[in-house]
Parts: sequence; structure tokens; C-alpha cells
Amino acid sequence: MIVLGIDPGTIAAGYGAVESSGARTRLVDCGAIRAKRSMPLAERLGIIHAGLSAVIAELEPEVAVVEEPFAGKNLATAIAIGEARGVALVACSAAGIPVEEFSPSEIKRAVTGSGSARKEQVGLMVASILGLAEPPDPSDASDALAAAICFLHRAPLRRAARDAKGR
Amino acid sequence: MIVLGIDPGTIAAGYGAVESSGARTRLVDCGAIRAKRSMPLAERLGIIHAGLSAVIAELEPEVAVVEEPFAGKNLATAIAIGEARGVALVACSAAGIPVEEFSPSEIKRAVTGSGSARKEQVGLMVASILGLAEPPDPSDASDALAAAICFLHRAPLRRAARDAKGR
Repeated sequence: MIVLGIDPGTIAAGYGAVESSGARTRLVDCGAIRAKRSMPLAERLGIIHAGLSAVIAELEPEVAVVEEPFAGKNLATAIAIGEARGVALVACSAAGIPVEEFSPSEIKRAVTGSGSARKEQVGLMVASILGLAEPPDPSDASDALAAAICFLHRAPLRRAARDAKGR
Repeated sequence: MIVLGIDPGTIAAGYGAVESSGARTRLVDCGAIRAKRSMPLAERLGIIHAGLSAVIAELEPEVAVVEEPFAGKNLATAIAIGEARGVALVACSAAGIPVEEFSPSEIKRAVTGSGSARKEQVGLMVASILGLAEPPDPSDASDALAAAICFLHRAPLRRAARDAKGR
């Protein structure tokens, strides 16, 4: 099963796909879609949308994972986070791929054991889990991989909780 | 020239297209794309994106107009506004249509003469400008038409200001 993590952004969006085979988690692909900072917003979002759609078409993930937006940011940032999320969610939806969301602290905890881990710790643990010599570059890709790994660790629990509710 | 106003939303998005011929402004089409409130966010955004893309393909507007996000909302609302905007901007960008933005008060002022006009006043003035018997329904469509009308009134000024800067 290929899981695609997406770290949405309005200038660059990270993506990272992992595959689980038994107890091992393998890197499939990762990177970032970048737009030029000087471009108008709609154009940047268009480039990121097209890039993510191409990644989805190529990797054919079974599920996509996006970080839940977190509070405690200012309003301008919140709107930008929303714009970036909207574009990522639409790219998944158009491809018929379900989207799972986890909070930033859930993702950090799943990868490092601590919900308040620093960005560098997340990168190091992502590298260790995937057997890479170095943290994936750029950090957007590393964050996207962390979200995908979180799904693989947490999905069985989530499914069990849903099934229990459904009874 | 057909101008398409879009009032983005994560459950319903209004659209309204107007055409200017000399001093007259004519309604081309208006309405709203609706998703079911009970659907997951990504699915709702997907439906709204597909609907707006279909409207753009059918009406072939020369320019799209979207309201600028306004401050003074809470963070959760700001993220939702961003998600809705991201989807609308990407639909325009994919079709190669430039997007113009105006603040909510600019739009109200252009249509009613007052930047703090109430929603109903905007609807009544939109109807009057377009020669309609009643305010367009739903209000999402009316708001989208107001944005498009604002563009027609303000675009010459904006272009002049840009040209002056470019010198």
C-alpha cells in the first residue's frame, strides 16, 4: 500500500510517498513542487495543483495524508494555510483518493515519540525509519513523509476505533 | 467582455457572470455550486472545484473576480476561507483566466455607494444595476455578481494606476 503525505504550501508543497511491506516502511518518492514567490497567488496555486496532480497520477497512492491546520497562528497565515490545503485536498479528491488528517503533534509523536519534537528531530527520525543516510531534503518533503509514516502507524488504531463506533 | 465573480465557500460557492456593452451591464448567468454539508471536506472541495471549472469552461470569462479575504474573523473561519479561495483560484488558474481581487468594502462601495452596506442592500442594488425584478438568489450568487460588477466599475481606474506605476 502506497501512502502519500502532502505538506501543503502556497509557494512550495512537499510530498512524500512510503510503502509498507510487513514490518518495513520503504521510501517510494519524495520532493517538493515549487512556484516562484514573485508569481501571483492564483498562478502559484495552479502550479502546485498541477504538480501534486501529476505526482498522484504517477504514484497512484491508496490514501493521502495531510496535516490538520493548527490554531495559534495569525489570521493572514491561517488564510494562506487554508488556500494551500484547499489546493492539496482538491488534487486528491479529483483523483478519487481518500484523505486522512492528523494533528501536527500526532505526526511528530508517531515519528519521534514526542508531540513537541523539533523539525530537525523529525527529519532525522524519518531518515532512520526509511533507512536513508540523511534527512530528506527539502524539509517540506521530510514533513510530508512524516505524515505518511504517521498514517501507517496510526491507521490500524483509527480503523479499530471507527469499527467500534459503527457497532 | 464577460466578467465572472466568484464567492468561494467550502459548502457552497456562488458565481455570477456579467457582460458590459457600452454603458449597460447585463447578467449572463449566476447561481451556486453546492456540496452536501455531511460530506468530507476534500469531497466538498472537489465538487465545488469541478462545478466552478465547468462554469468557467461554459462561460469563457475574460477575467475572474474574487473577494479578498478580510481580517477580523476567527482562525477556524480564516482557514475555511482560505480552503475555499484556494479551490476557486486554482479553477481559474487551470483555465488560464487572470484573477482580480477587491476588498469586501470596495465591492460594497462599487455597488451601493457605501463600503458598509448590508447584504440585502447589495442584493437590491445588484438587481437594479442588472435590470432584474428581484435580487439574485441565493445570496452567494448575488455576492459573486457584486464582485464582477465592481471589477467593471473599477478596472479602468486600476489599469490606469498600473500604467502610471509602470512608467
